[in-house]
Amino acid sequence: MESSSHSSKEEIAKTEEEWSKKAWEILSKVRENSPLIQCITNLVSMDLVANTLLAVGASPAMIISSQEIPDFTPQVNALYVNVGTLSSSLLPAINSAAQIAGKFRIPWVFDPVAAGSSGFRLRACLDLLLLKPTVVRGNGSEIIALSRASCGTTKGADSLHESKDALEAAKSLAQATGAVVAVTGAVDIVTDGKQVIGAHNGVQMMQKITATGCSVTALIAAFVAVDPSHPFEATAAALSVFGIAGELGMQAAKGPGSLRVNLIDSLYGLDQASIHHHAKISLLS
Amino acid sequence: MESSSHSSKEEIAKTEEEWSKKAWEILSKVRENSPLIQCITNLVSMDLVANTLLAVGASPAMIISSQEIPDFTPQVNALYVNVGTLSSSLLPAINSAAQIAGKFRIPWVFDPVAAGSSGFRLRACLDLLLLKPTVVRGNGSEIIALSRASCGTTKGADSLHESKDALEAAKSLAQATGAVVAVTGAVDIVTDGKQVIGAHNGVQMMQKITATGCSVTALIAAFVAVDPSHPFEATAAALSVFGIAGELGMQAAKGPGSLRVNLIDSLYGLDQASIHHHAKISLLS
Amino acid sequence: MESSSHSSKEEIAKTEEEWSKKAWEILSKVRENSPLIQCITNLVSMDLVANTLLAVGASPAMIISSQEIPDFTPQVNALYVNVGTLSSSLLPAINSAAQIAGKFRIPWVFDPVAAGSSGFRLRACLDLLLLKPTVVRGNGSEIIALSRASCGTTKGADSLHESKDALEAAKSLAQATGAVVAVTGAVDIVTDGKQVIGAHNGVQMMQKITATGCSVTALIAAFVAVDPSHPFEATAAALSVFGIAGELGMQAAKGPGSLRVNLIDSLYGLDQASIHHHAKISLLS
Repeated sequence: MESSSHSSKEEIAKTEEEWSKKAWEILSKVRENSPLIQCITNLVSMDLVANTLLAVGASPAMIISSQEIPDFTPQVNALYVNVGTLSSSLLPAINSAAQIAGKFRIPWVFDPVAAGSSGFRLRACLDLLLLKPTVVRGNGSEIIALSRASCGTTKGADSLHESKDALEAAKSLAQATGAVVAVTGAVDIVTDGKQVIGAHNGVQMMQKITATGCSVTALIAAFVAVDPSHPFEATAAALSVFGIAGELGMQAAKGPGSLRVNLIDSLYGLDQASIHHHAKISLLS
Repeated sequence: MESSSHSSKEEIAKTEEEWSKKAWEILSKVRENSPLIQCITNLVSMDLVANTLLAVGASPAMIISSQEIPDFTPQVNALYVNVGTLSSSLLPAINSAAQIAGKFRIPWVFDPVAAGSSGFRLRACLDLLLLKPTVVRGNGSEIIALSRASCGTTKGADSLHESKDALEAAKSLAQATGAVVAVTGAVDIVTDGKQVIGAHNGVQMMQKITATGCSVTALIAAFVAVDPSHPFEATAAALSVFGIAGELGMQAAKGPGSLRVNLIDSLYGLDQASIHHHAKISLLS
Repeated sequence: MESSSHSSKEEIAKTEEEWSKKAWEILSKVRENSPLIQCITNLVSMDLVANTLLAVGASPAMIISSQEIPDFTPQVNALYVNVGTLSSSLLPAINSAAQIAGKFRIPWVFDPVAAGSSGFRLRACLDLLLLKPTVVRGNGSEIIALSRASCGTTKGADSLHESKDALEAAKSLAQATGAVVAVTGAVDIVTDGKQVIGAHNGVQMMQKITATGCSVTALIAAFVAVDPSHPFEATAAALSVFGIAGELGMQAAKGPGSLRVNLIDSLYGLDQASIHHHAKISLLS
């Protein structure tokens, strides 16, 4: 599995033109194949996560019970795990699903929400990293917290400009775990530990809508589900597509309430021209 | 309770005219009486289920704890049970509420979400059927899974056209359990094991909104709550009313995000003329 | 902490003019300081509660696990507790968070949803009152149920006009617990046990949207977080601000679906002029 995230340089799109084609191809494949995505996500985000997946044509399944995972998880096309409202009763289910995903070579995507907010949560996240997620997506402070705890980086957060710090943390984390690591913020970056892609779509107001981070991570799972041998590119494409839907949705939005509605409408209606005109993905290094 | 679902042919509306009157009457009664509907539903659907019930004037109560059910359930006008995010901690509460509903002759409506997705879930559903739900509402594959497991039908799903297969499965299930059984899909069908009603309202995009199936089942509970001796007709009326709200909501929708908003607005605003013009309910056999 | 809710008469705004200034000041402070609000709320309301807090610039954190509370709760600016979907597994987390809030002098706001609906819930609510919430917000019947159970008032609910009855119950409850008590309804009232403020904003249709009560209580937590020494005024200001957002949202609403969207948009966009023109807060006694 690790090897899949270390695609050779030749395989990776170079121009924005090539990237927008790639993004459209993967989205089209999601619409055609309707991949089954098991979501063990937090209680706040279930609604928006499910609606995001439905809007792009994927098939969400919120199966969260330990009793069901041995029967159900082997059948899914990707697993999405989110620790936003972690509890001691949910954790065994998450671990069991991630283990089965690994065993059956099903891609799984990990959203370490608020990773550093408690010792319990940080330990749970570190244990999950040992189960080799295909992709990890977090904001800067989440990725920095994980990277420090798992790679022993000792540099302080203040010692460097935050986004640079997050990039270094993401690279270390990717190298240590074999996962593709995405850091979302003003610019979204994706790294496999060597190369770095930047995805420059999205609008700031999306951060005023709860669960947009969770939802884009679920979208990554759907994109990786239909292109499991290229998680690096699929992740960048998903981030860009979600951001484009936000940009289009913003055109008629009056605030975060209507933006949320428009975001789903836009995701549903995305066509090749919109992606072609708006996608801003580039290989940074 | 079983007898109530076996209304004689004379009682059942025949023409679309009579059906639209019936649907309007029941909706009006919900608005007047504001029935208290206890919902033990999945974590994804709680918001839309509650808003659906509020939009038609019913009073939703999401009481889900075993400790509260003996005090609370005897007071409700109907119980709605949904196994979408079943867990070993929720199951005892569901069973206890269904038992109390039976004991106090409170109608209860069962939504066997993804019934066949695990052995744990299928067994839980079969046990719930033994507690005699008033109505069971599912999609084709859910009803087929339940019917096979409880009635021992051995025909394969592929051996027949799926909607026909679902109809036969629904009839068997109704006969075996005494419940009114509804199968939703391109056309919604309702059967008491003998007669079959078709409800032809709704738009396809509603399937791209999470929890619409859960919400229409909650609406069935509200309709049955105010007309408990006619669950067969109340179920058909609720399916049609929800579908009409979707059709009206679709007129100004730009995608599943705005359709969801409009659906609730339309449910709230439905008047007799709209129902009269749009209701498409008919006795199929 | 108790003393903070007994501000002297001099400190309290008198005219609508003064009140609207106050409300604007507190809202502005929330936007500037982005207080971290831990929400242990019911499963139905998580989405709207989080979006309400984000819309005003606060930072919601849905940390609900007993394992995380000792690490996390000491860092928050306010705690919001809601028993809407109480369970025996959630209750210890709620109690622990409330205890830590008390120990660290963090304001906490309590929403006793459906307080009287079961013995289990009523006992849990009475125990929480002993942990000295800064503010309690409920509807008339919730506050009456709590007041009766904790203060031994024996008057029947029917013996008096309900809103008067609720006012007396709120005063008794405030005196017995030291909390500021708010009762929401056609008119919202707030009392510290002696003085009473009325907040006359809002539209009736907000009651047709699930979780508006929960969301305004979360907003109270955000307002108290930035003005912890004046919970009496902060509570009245939050009720008014939420009501104004509802009034503005109602202008373009077609039903409870669009009102919910507009409410969030309006909260996000509120400016001083809107608050100045619409705020209707007055010291009643």
